[in-house]
Amino acid sequence: MSYQSLKEECYEANMLLPKLHLVVFTFGNASVVDREKGVFAIKPSGVPYEFLRPEDIVICDFDAQVVEGTKRPSSDTKTHAVLFKNWEKIGGIVHTHSTYATAWAQAQLDIPILGTTHADHLTTDIPCAPPMDDEMIKGNYEYETGYQVLNEFERRNLSYEEVEMVLLGNHAPFTWGKTAEKAVYNAGVLEAVAQMAYLSCTLRPDVPRLKQTLIDKHFFRKHGKDAYYGQGC
Amino acid sequence: MSYQSLKEECYEANMLLPKLHLVVFTFGNASVVDREKGVFAIKPSGVPYEFLRPEDIVICDFDAQVVEGTKRPSSDTKTHAVLFKNWEKIGGIVHTHSTYATAWAQAQLDIPILGTTHADHLTTDIPCAPPMDDEMIKGNYEYETGYQVLNEFERRNLSYEEVEMVLLGNHAPFTWGKTAEKAVYNAGVLEAVAQMAYLSCTLRPDVPRLKQTLIDKHFFRKHGKDAYYGQGC
Amino acid sequence: MSYQSLKEECYEANMLLPKLHLVVFTFGNASVVDREKGVFAIKPSGVPYEFLRPEDIVICDFDAQVVEGTKRPSSDTKTHAVLFKNWEKIGGIVHTHSTYATAWAQAQLDIPILGTTHADHLTTDIPCAPPMDDEMIKGNYEYETGYQVLNEFERRNLSYEEVEMVLLGNHAPFTWGKTAEKAVYNAGVLEAVAQMAYLSCTLRPDVPRLKQTLIDKHFFRKHGKDAYYGQGC
Amino acid sequence: MSYQSLKEECYEANMLLPKLHLVVFTFGNASVVDREKGVFAIKPSGVPYEFLRPEDIVICDFDAQVVEGTKRPSSDTKTHAVLFKNWEKIGGIVHTHSTYATAWAQAQLDIPILGTTHADHLTTDIPCAPPMDDEMIKGNYEYETGYQVLNEFERRNLSYEEVEMVLLGNHAPFTWGKTAEKAVYNAGVLEAVAQMAYLSCTLRPDVPRLKQTLIDKHFFRKHGKDAYYGQGC
Repeated sequence: MSYQSLKEECYEANMLLPKLHLVVFTFGNASVVDREKGVFAIKPSGVPYEFLRPEDIVICDFDAQVVEGTKRPSSDTKTHAVLFKNWEKIGGIVHTHSTYATAWAQAQLDIPILGTTHADHLTTDIPCAPPMDDEMIKGNYEYETGYQVLNEFERRNLSYEEVEMVLLGNHAPFTWGKTAEKAVYNAGVLEAVAQMAYLSCTLRPDVPRLKQTLIDKHFFRKHGKDAYYGQGC
Repeated sequence: MSYQSLKEECYEANMLLPKLHLVVFTFGNASVVDREKGVFAIKPSGVPYEFLRPEDIVICDFDAQVVEGTKRPSSDTKTHAVLFKNWEKIGGIVHTHSTYATAWAQAQLDIPILGTTHADHLTTDIPCAPPMDDEMIKGNYEYETGYQVLNEFERRNLSYEEVEMVLLGNHAPFTWGKTAEKAVYNAGVLEAVAQMAYLSCTLRPDVPRLKQTLIDKHFFRKHGKDAYYGQGC
Repeated sequence: MSYQSLKEECYEANMLLPKLHLVVFTFGNASVVDREKGVFAIKPSGVPYEFLRPEDIVICDFDAQVVEGTKRPSSDTKTHAVLFKNWEKIGGIVHTHSTYATAWAQAQLDIPILGTTHADHLTTDIPCAPPMDDEMIKGNYEYETGYQVLNEFERRNLSYEEVEMVLLGNHAPFTWGKTAEKAVYNAGVLEAVAQMAYLSCTLRPDVPRLKQTLIDKHFFRKHGKDAYYGQGC
Repeated sequence: MSYQSLKEECYEANMLLPKLHLVVFTFGNASVVDREKGVFAIKPSGVPYEFLRPEDIVICDFDAQVVEGTKRPSSDTKTHAVLFKNWEKIGGIVHTHSTYATAWAQAQLDIPILGTTHADHLTTDIPCAPPMDDEMIKGNYEYETGYQVLNEFERRNLSYEEVEMVLLGNHAPFTWGKTAEKAVYNAGVLEAVAQMAYLSCTLRPDVPRLKQTLIDKHFFRKHGKDAYYGQGC
């Protein structure tokens, strides 16, 4: 099998999604990049997780052209390609329709930063990109979806290395990270944070955002040069 | 065992319902049609899923008369019969009382189309048929239930091949498809969409419907002659 | 082991409660009566389900006195005794703190009859008995709890053979039935109905009650002389 | 392995947290004290539960200095140390970000006492300590977190032996008990009570608190010299 280890890594990342209750049926996909070869591995389109095998994984280049594989790649492949091409330090991308994150995306609302669970992972509200213009939707939709994310990050002056997740308005979340495993982890964190924020907001509609000192404290004890969370490796 | 493969297919479809957390106790049933023989197989009435065996499945004709089997068929058999008789291209029907879909049915509300998870599967709100007139309820209730669905689709000018699910007001959902497996899949999709819509609506009561370009884009990338989702088979 | 089969039946009924996700830790108990011997079997107090054994079950008479067993019986034993003594046709009782039913009890609200899932099992709102007077609470509390249920059924003119469940205001549900297995089933039905009603009421606060013709239709197709649901045995 | 039994007890307590669905990923930690040796065992920082081994557990003194172990201890170690040092009768502490309890903490609301499930375990609302002053956050944060809890209990005149749980505003819960196992149990009770209170409050925003006679009745049948719940050992 060519690209064997890349395919296996991609397979393992995909299989974590149903295990973490982030996808049902075929509602999601994970990809892994090989920067040296200029390709990424991605789930084939419409294949249920329970039947997925490592050899089904498709290899594509950054223009979303299939390089290797007998299956058709995920219908979201162009979105992955745009993100991999433009954000050079990410190693993996995950797309799910996880329940609470998708509910926020449908409501076209940013997920407000309300607690330290959120601040442990990012210092801003989780951005919800607005639905695209009709022209973009009718055109090269999945390709434009990638640009909708890039543009929203630029418009808000966000760094993709600090904010590793986004909601696509009316659609669902994308997450990424230095590795595919980290992208999967971020998808799980997003769903947990989305659920807690839903509960806090329905319990107390005027719930205040977390104050800046707490945001900074929790983020920088896990990230950056003065971090002291974890085993330092 | 006569009708062995039909019974086994029906048995398998039924057993997916508790596995997908769509039924508890005996709150649901699945059926499979054999168009050549003019019969369908359906779950027996009131038999808990954990005790169900393939040989318990009952074979009925399109007037809901038992053709083969030692058990009494589901109390909803006449509803299945009416739908099979009138909608000639469906191969299976599923009835559940799945939690979120039933909550919408009890509220007598259509499930509004709020996101692409919904639009991936149908282009309209999920219709909630109103409760029946008292005359119909007191009469041939389960037979009239089938006609309530047929009439509601006619009234709204909906195609059963495009919209494969309905809520019965005050009652619960029915779904169908070209195969029983697809009908089960639709029951799972409906429950996922119903939960997300519940969450979006309680989070933001004035949540807007999905715009038409996004509805069309998502539906037609999965359905029709220009579809490019899945493996094309 | 004396009363072996009674203890084993009680043990099996109790073990269904965590299996059906109706209890955590020690938050519940099931009992089974032997009318001929004038005794009932009940879970011992404070024993976690994972350590419960058939020989731990305690045998009591209808005055809640221990007849046989080395453990102390459930702290709710007097409530069970009062119900067994006064309602001669019940064979088992279940008490849980299941999540949604208890949330309704805490809100001191009847669960309104909103759908056929509810009407399949009873024709009225699920009654919530008010919290007891201070005198009753400070007195023989668990004994008075039984009378609070009896009195509420009398006040509302309800039949315990038709309505096999109650919420105790501020506390949690009790259910019963002709057998302990039916009482467990009713505890599961109550939790499912309580969750659906919660969702319908938060989605649409002015949700209407089910109309009487539908209530009667669904109840009487499962109960009474003209029932045609199930296998008739 | 030094401190072998202490490490194993700590390991077992930690492993109960994912089993009880109270933590995902690394979002929690449990500790156990050895009062004679003046040390406590705690989970290492950032180690996922599925990879945790007894030998990874870290031993610290009451000033949060590592006494034994090759891993870095939990980033919350100083909070545990402050509580162990000041509250001499507790044997274990648990910190989680369990979903419903954290939602209340994010909303900066006490969990009101609404039912007997709550009163079975404590007689007051579950206190939510306010977020700390900016000076405390920027200073010795985790150490100050411990003092925030101590000060809140003093301000409210609460006994840590009677109220074995607290919410940290904007953050998440801490629970404790005479043993680590009791602290884990309390974390589970808190999550169950938090969910029921969320449901009751969203169902009926003006839901009344439990009346004092019921609070006293339920608490004192389980606690103190006249308790009659459980097996008396």
